[in-house]
Amino acid sequence: MTHKTELSRFELGLAKLAEVDGKVGEEVVAPLGDLGKYVIEFAFGDIYQREGLSLREREIATVAMLTVLGRETQLRVHINAALNVGLSAEEIEETIIQTVPYAGFPTAINGINILKDVVSEVHG
Amino acid sequence: MTHKTELSRFELGLAKLAEVDGKVGEEVVAPLGDLGKYVIEFAFGDIYQREGLSLREREIATVAMLTVLGRETQLRVHINAALNVGLSAEEIEETIIQTVPYAGFPTAINGINILKDVVSEVHG
Amino acid sequence: MTHKTELSRFELGLAKLAEVDGKVGEEVVAPLGDLGKYVIEFAFGDIYQREGLSLREREIATVAMLTVLGRETQLRVHINAALNVGLSAEEIEETIIQTVPYAGFPTAINGINILKDVVSEVHG
Amino acid sequence: MTHKTELSRFELGLAKLAEVDGKVGEEVVAPLGDLGKYVIEFAFGDIYQREGLSLREREIATVAMLTVLGRETQLRVHINAALNVGLSAEEIEETIIQTVPYAGFPTAINGINILKDVVSEVHG
Amino acid sequence: MTHKTELSRFELGLAKLAEVDGKVGEEVVAPLGDLGKYVIEFAFGDIYQREGLSLREREIATVAMLTVLGRETQLRVHINAALNVGLSAEEIEETIIQTVPYAGFPTAINGINILKDVVSEVHG
Amino acid sequence: MTHKTELSRFELGLAKLAEVDGKVGEEVVAPLGDLGKYVIEFAFGDIYQREGLSLREREIATVAMLTVLGRETQLRVHINAALNVGLSAEEIEETIIQTVPYAGFPTAINGINILKDVVSEVHG
Repeated sequence: MTHKTELSRFELGLAKLAEVDGKVGEEVVAPLGDLGKYVIEFAFGDIYQREGLSLREREIATVAMLTVLGRETQLRVHINAALNVGLSAEEIEETIIQTVPYAGFPTAINGINILKDVVSEVHG
Repeated sequence: MTHKTELSRFELGLAKLAEVDGKVGEEVVAPLGDLGKYVIEFAFGDIYQREGLSLREREIATVAMLTVLGRETQLRVHINAALNVGLSAEEIEETIIQTVPYAGFPTAINGINILKDVVSEVHG
Repeated sequence: MTHKTELSRFELGLAKLAEVDGKVGEEVVAPLGDLGKYVIEFAFGDIYQREGLSLREREIATVAMLTVLGRETQLRVHINAALNVGLSAEEIEETIIQTVPYAGFPTAINGINILKDVVSEVHG
Repeated sequence: MTHKTELSRFELGLAKLAEVDGKVGEEVVAPLGDLGKYVIEFAFGDIYQREGLSLREREIATVAMLTVLGRETQLRVHINAALNVGLSAEEIEETIIQTVPYAGFPTAINGINILKDVVSEVHG
Repeated sequence: MTHKTELSRFELGLAKLAEVDGKVGEEVVAPLGDLGKYVIEFAFGDIYQREGLSLREREIATVAMLTVLGRETQLRVHINAALNVGLSAEEIEETIIQTVPYAGFPTAINGINILKDVVSEVHG
Repeated sequence: MTHKTELSRFELGLAKLAEVDGKVGEEVVAPLGDLGKYVIEFAFGDIYQREGLSLREREIATVAMLTVLGRETQLRVHINAALNVGLSAEEIEETIIQTVPYAGFPTAINGINILKDVVSEVHG
């Protein structure tokens, strides 16, 4: 019988964070102290490593949520993550357009503007 | 050159609503008057009929959004819709678990309880 | 030079509450203890008695806000209040429809359903 | 029998957008692609062109909603719109003060600060 | 050098859940499957067992948050928890009143009504 | 029999504002006109001067609320207030970490980053 130790959840999470977010994620998490540790262990070590949905599907859900919640700093991170796990800019735009019937235009407009920023940075 | 007319957006939307939500959607929309007309024309005739994401992906985004927004009546409708377009109960559970890092446990707990209700109704 | 005293803010608020909400307001506020006192003194004695917008305009703003915030118990109270200060059911419906571009369909659908309930109670 | 075509909803919406927001609206919508098309067709071509409330009343509702939702970029646009359709700065201030009992001071403080910015730009 | 294992986080969390919420917590968490496991391991095994704030202070923060977020099912659980860790009904009322300047009356009114329910159940 | 007059609520509130927020509060409130008067009279003259919770406990509740509501300007003010009434930076960090189970990581990350800013300003 084996147990995942704290160490392995952290390591597992760090590897998953790199897979999902690339370097951007690590830069966001590093200065956060214990909170950053929980992002890595719980969000990435526990939740993102689960089976049952692909990373592509997890990022569709996440981009939609962060758009409607208006969490713009994290939306920027996860638009990069979505590109990183294989969504096209057009599919991310489509995900943001899908939020309109459920949360209206203002949060979607902010989302599209962040998407345009990210795409022009990536191509710039 | 052809134009989609108002009539065709409504008809297109009605067909898409049936495809996505089955009968439940029509029952929700029918008594809403002009608001129901816009749900059909705009949400289903304009947005849901777009290409670029599958219905399965649109429902993953929608279940995640409605969970974190705490819109429980509509979440119930869209959990049925998600089952209807081919997501398994396990994948819907997974989508709700994916919301925890972004919006915490309370809305996810409410989401899981609604999912359990819907599943037991479907099987009951 | 005159000062409004605490007593007069409470009395002023109580009169304004009756003008705006009729009996429903008093029933909601009475069991709330100190919180109810602040509703009367601050919300009605300070804010609602201000000039610059008509009661009709204040209720348009309030119905819109409570709809998008999803505060259903208070929305019910203020749909009654809106009818009470002279808005028609059609104008209240129109106010709720105006929320859709800003906050999406789910909160508007809940709002319309509460409006229908209130109207059928009033006419029942 | 006549149908409004897609084209006419867009044209109707564009004219209504200019009536409500002046140039600011067009600048916000132009770079948004399909999302901007829906803002024009649905928000302005369908919703804002409805009868039943005056533009003045629609902007009172909209300023109140955007204040409590904390959507600051769009609040700035709609404070300009409110001035444009005939509300005075004092009436907009009054609308923002009306939000306090329903959503507290922080969003109202942000709203008043944006109003002050807009007024000083207009007069600057 | 020692590691907390997964097992010990779960056990630690279960003991903390009992300390905070009494039986009510366990009843809420038990039917939730993997989500319930994360409530126990992460919310109670990781967060609630931290030093730096007393349980009393954590429940003051939690009652305030759940009130303003409008999460009524969980607020009911945590009003019980707050009583359980030593807050008086008057202190919980005071915590809810403290939310008014930050989120307005509607969520506070809902909070006070839940508090009154819980107190009458406890004394009933 | 004595009445608190409007004047005394304002004076009481102004003294309490200085006790809680130091100079920062006054700078925020001064340019707000009537809204600023209500912040002083109602938030500080009525609510903050109540007994039943210590200022330390009121700021724990307030930091938690403003974090989960994402009201960043006011969170900055109240992190200063929390330091001012005797909370340590570590206790404020702990309060922000306590929000994660209830509202997720994005608002907590924003909160921690504001805390780090405030602490480096205070020490800078």
